[in-house]
Amino acid sequence: MEAFRQAVVNTLERRLFYIPSFKIYRGVAGLYDYGPPGCAVKSNVLAFWRQHFVLEENMLEVDCPCVTPEVVLKASGHVDKFTDLMVKDEKTGTCYRADHLLKDFCKEKLEKDPKITEEKAAEFKHVIAVLDEFSAEELGSKIKEYGITAPDTKNPLSAPYPFNLMFQTSIGPSGVSPGYMRPETAQGIFVNFKDLYYYNGNKLPFAAAQIGQAFRNEISPRQGLLRVREFTLAEIEHFVDPEDKSHPKFSEVANLEFLMFPRQDQVSGQSARIIHLGEAVSGGIVNNETLGYFIGRVYLFLTYLGIDKERLRFRQHLANEMAHYAADCWDAEIECSYGWIECVGIADRSAYDLRAHTDKSGVPLVAAEKFAEPIEKLVITPVKKELGLAFKGNQKMVVEALEAMEEKEAMEMKATLESKGEVEFQVCTLGKDVTIKKNMVTISKEKKKEHQRVFTPSVIEPSFGIGRIIYCLYEHSFYTRPSKGGDEQLNVFRFPPLVAPIKCTVFPLVQNQQYEEVAKRIAKSLTAAGISYKIDITGTSIGKRYARTDELGVPLAITVDSTTSVTLRERDSKQQIRVSVEEVASVVKEVTDGLNTWNDVLWKYPTHSSAASED
Amino acid sequence: MEAFRQAVVNTLERRLFYIPSFKIYRGVAGLYDYGPPGCAVKSNVLAFWRQHFVLEENMLEVDCPCVTPEVVLKASGHVDKFTDLMVKDEKTGTCYRADHLLKDFCKEKLEKDPKITEEKAAEFKHVIAVLDEFSAEELGSKIKEYGITAPDTKNPLSAPYPFNLMFQTSIGPSGVSPGYMRPETAQGIFVNFKDLYYYNGNKLPFAAAQIGQAFRNEISPRQGLLRVREFTLAEIEHFVDPEDKSHPKFSEVANLEFLMFPRQDQVSGQSARIIHLGEAVSGGIVNNETLGYFIGRVYLFLTYLGIDKERLRFRQHLANEMAHYAADCWDAEIECSYGWIECVGIADRSAYDLRAHTDKSGVPLVAAEKFAEPIEKLVITPVKKELGLAFKGNQKMVVEALEAMEEKEAMEMKATLESKGEVEFQVCTLGKDVTIKKNMVTISKEKKKEHQRVFTPSVIEPSFGIGRIIYCLYEHSFYTRPSKGGDEQLNVFRFPPLVAPIKCTVFPLVQNQQYEEVAKRIAKSLTAAGISYKIDITGTSIGKRYARTDELGVPLAITVDSTTSVTLRERDSKQQIRVSVEEVASVVKEVTDGLNTWNDVLWKYPTHSSAASED
Repeated sequence: MEAFRQAVVNTLERRLFYIPSFKIYRGVAGLYDYGPPGCAVKSNVLAFWRQHFVLEENMLEVDCPCVTPEVVLKASGHVDKFTDLMVKDEKTGTCYRADHLLKDFCKEKLEKDPKITEEKAAEFKHVIAVLDEFSAEELGSKIKEYGITAPDTKNPLSAPYPFNLMFQTSIGPSGVSPGYMRPETAQGIFVNFKDLYYYNGNKLPFAAAQIGQAFRNEISPRQGLLRVREFTLAEIEHFVDPEDKSHPKFSEVANLEFLMFPRQDQVSGQSARIIHLGEAVSGGIVNNETLGYFIGRVYLFLTYLGIDKERLRFRQHLANEMAHYAADCWDAEIECSYGWIECVGIADRSAYDLRAHTDKSGVPLVAAEKFAEPIEKLVITPVKKELGLAFKGNQKMVVEALEAMEEKEAMEMKATLESKGEVEFQVCTLGKDVTIKKNMVTISKEKKKEHQRVFTPSVIEPSFGIGRIIYCLYEHSFYTRPSKGGDEQLNVFRFPPLVAPIKCTVFPLVQNQQYEEVAKRIAKSLTAAGISYKIDITGTSIGKRYARTDELGVPLAITVDSTTSVTLRERDSKQQIRVSVEEVASVVKEVTDGLNTWNDVLWKYPTHSSAASED
Repeated sequence: MEAFRQAVVNTLERRLFYIPSFKIYRGVAGLYDYGPPGCAVKSNVLAFWRQHFVLEENMLEVDCPCVTPEVVLKASGHVDKFTDLMVKDEKTGTCYRADHLLKDFCKEKLEKDPKITEEKAAEFKHVIAVLDEFSAEELGSKIKEYGITAPDTKNPLSAPYPFNLMFQTSIGPSGVSPGYMRPETAQGIFVNFKDLYYYNGNKLPFAAAQIGQAFRNEISPRQGLLRVREFTLAEIEHFVDPEDKSHPKFSEVANLEFLMFPRQDQVSGQSARIIHLGEAVSGGIVNNETLGYFIGRVYLFLTYLGIDKERLRFRQHLANEMAHYAADCWDAEIECSYGWIECVGIADRSAYDLRAHTDKSGVPLVAAEKFAEPIEKLVITPVKKELGLAFKGNQKMVVEALEAMEEKEAMEMKATLESKGEVEFQVCTLGKDVTIKKNMVTISKEKKKEHQRVFTPSVIEPSFGIGRIIYCLYEHSFYTRPSKGGDEQLNVFRFPPLVAPIKCTVFPLVQNQQYEEVAKRIAKSLTAAGISYKIDITGTSIGKRYARTDELGVPLAITVDSTTSVTLRERDSKQQIRVSVEEVASVVKEVTDGLNTWNDVLWKYPTHSSAASED
């Protein structure tokens, strides 16, 4: 596993898929640049995300700033709660994540200490399992108990304390307006709910979407591209009536079957299993249709990109993992050399976020359902004069209790008063029953008021960590195969054309002016067709040139070996066909646009076999 | 002008092209969200930028983080010099840009004070003209002289002092690693020069490009979308051999003619005039072909987007505007209601940036030109023993002077020594001539060493302020026309299809199930064709629905008025044709992809005229 990862990462760094940022200044942990092929992959993934989600679902895309004033992140809870527990080397001041140190300690004991008892082993395993829920005190006492010291110096460690993960800054020159670099893009959508709802014709449901940078000042970044300090998020906030979470297009994904890992299965120690999405929703495993619809759409998105469906699972959050307000939450987890990695979170966050901003800003972020006909409404009118005479100083509490009655209770009281003239009535705030007489209250159902119902919409939020998805895609796409001589292993990324950073390469077989002119003509027609290509006129052997572009995941290569027709070679099968110079750009376009597969075009054109062509 | 701007801005805000950020919390000056149509326009502009520059020129696109460690911005000069001069209200602490206060004062005097003398008026005009070059002291003394006070309170002001415009933050938890939010994207490219040069096969010229957020903590943002605290930049760094700035594709733009405003014309008080680009380069107005090539490409980019070519000019920087290291610099300025606004800067920054990072990091950011054949090299070997005997204590200075000779001078000396045996030689450091004899020096041209020339490349940098371009595009695209009844003015954005946020709308003429089903079928075929559309099934009159989408700049509208064929209407001409339900998506695609113009399709299909259709 380590060796595989090293092979992938070496290839990625050597071919500039990514570069540690500010490398000439010895870099900054947790910051990476996307080099040319990585940047192209990212832009392809984002373009497809826009196509698959925003365009297909008519979402309202917005683009908000990264710099965010404190009040917004105070309302969302990030200022107070977006923290990790940190310990400091008491002598050098170096900082560590407390949970990482404890986890590393337990893992090392389990892996490298052959003398530990079964009992101890079970304890370490348990600690690893419940680590995420430890309080600062619990973490601190475990670190003390195990005698864990600073990894680099063996110095003693401070007690764990919370460190806020937001990058702080100051807005404007006065120094009195604190701000933060946003830790997620979602808040920009929530604060605009009112305008977006209006833009959508005051109709629910609708979704807003945003792609943008987010920032987390990690204490000690690890795991390469998986835990970084700045990353691209793509987030959807789907606003829906909490009383109707059905989805009109659910049937389009209901018959999908894939690996799911429901809460009960995790608790009872089972493994993830293939579940029919429609049954997961109808059986109540997934909370509602809209949540289920997005789970299905995320599955399609990831597998279209080239994520291996056998290493993709949807894991439901355990009850204690989920925020108290969340109705249900599923993570799309992708397996890579680092284990199962959360790449997309799909959460039903109920009305939490809109309520929080309503409270803080005083601007009601609500929706209204207008009724075509006026609805019946319960009207309870206590007769204060009579109640005052009867209950004196307790009058207020009796009035409040009467007004607070639910419809059912009130209608029963009405019936009893009409038949018996009085009724016993419990007033909790008085701690006793009182006798209500017919003249003390009127109860009726009236058909007037309330032509609309005003409510805070629920939010269903699919949130995509684009960098994580791309890294997993790299691992899932990577393989090696022996060179023709068999003396070395060649690297290949089997990116689908959708993702491939460059769609096509153009190689004049030998260095001569005629072939180079044909290559230029083809290059021009590729540009006109909007296909990204790379032209390689070096005298290197054609086999080496193929190997170079296989390593970039380029799906098709054109070798110019005559002035009228050329050889078109597919990356994974290494099959070759002959196509005329005039036609070749349109054949490449068909395949890379996904209108035809390689197999479709294969039988249309003569195949080409040349022993000399590879290696 | 004010009224026109107000009409544009009202429409933009009402239709959510943009929204002041965090509005429900009363917003933050200088931060704006792009709402759905604005976001779509932006993403169209960026996609076209990628097509027009990155793909067309095979540029290496990279994507670097916004968070930047201090050392990088120290090297670039931003930590020390990226400042504006600020004054503070001495009582309230409110901050103002010193130059803005002075400018406002002079303008107000000129506009509103009828009593000022001609002399005074000339002085105020002069101050406005030279304002940008005032030092803190000069600004301060003018403010004092004019008795300028804080605009809101009339309190006295502090002396002007520099305020750094970067948002500062801290990287990691230790608090000892200062960082900033990048003020431009260029530095991320410069620090990667070595890797990118290698990626390009160690060949010059090549260009790298980056699109991303940049941040400037403006003292007091004004002018709406034109001066903001966070914005999207698209930057190109074209690396080129300083000894050869020709461009192979210059001929493709050489015949363009457009408004240019060379330095001399500005100094001599002339206006911008139409100049032939090829002549501007050959005549030395533009420093070199590569700079000229990019000027031409920027012109094409902006006019394709819909910028009015009569309100677009390329203005050369005056000598005192330009950084000392810059070889030449031209701004693409677009005229809008705020005046001529710099939207793209195109600068030949010579070797400055790469040298600065080479010096700071110790990593040589250089290129090498390998010579196919070894070149002849001048070798001057002073014979120190003989020189020591002849010149004693002055020996060192004579040696240095000999070694410093240019080829021509050395070869002349060689000839003279061979013919006459000695030569008079001026040694500047001694302030006199000395006599050099044949045995004191050997001079030869040797064919060996130096198979390559190592040098720091020049950088030509086109830098695009995307938000400013988009705002100017809004103004240039906006017009009003009377409604059919003539009782109101309707707003229209004449966006080209390339830019339009939505390409097409679908309206069932009346609310019935048949038409709605046809509309859904058309919607599906539009999605399949990758065309963004909006469907409006409200019962509003068709004229009102047209007006609504004209205001979003939607170029084409499909009205479903039968189950077999539909009406297709063009926004600006209001012309209508009849197209079959099956064909309509592909007709829309032809026009919006730019394969055909509206006029091309107009004669192919029957025209439709219905008095009832508008209003």
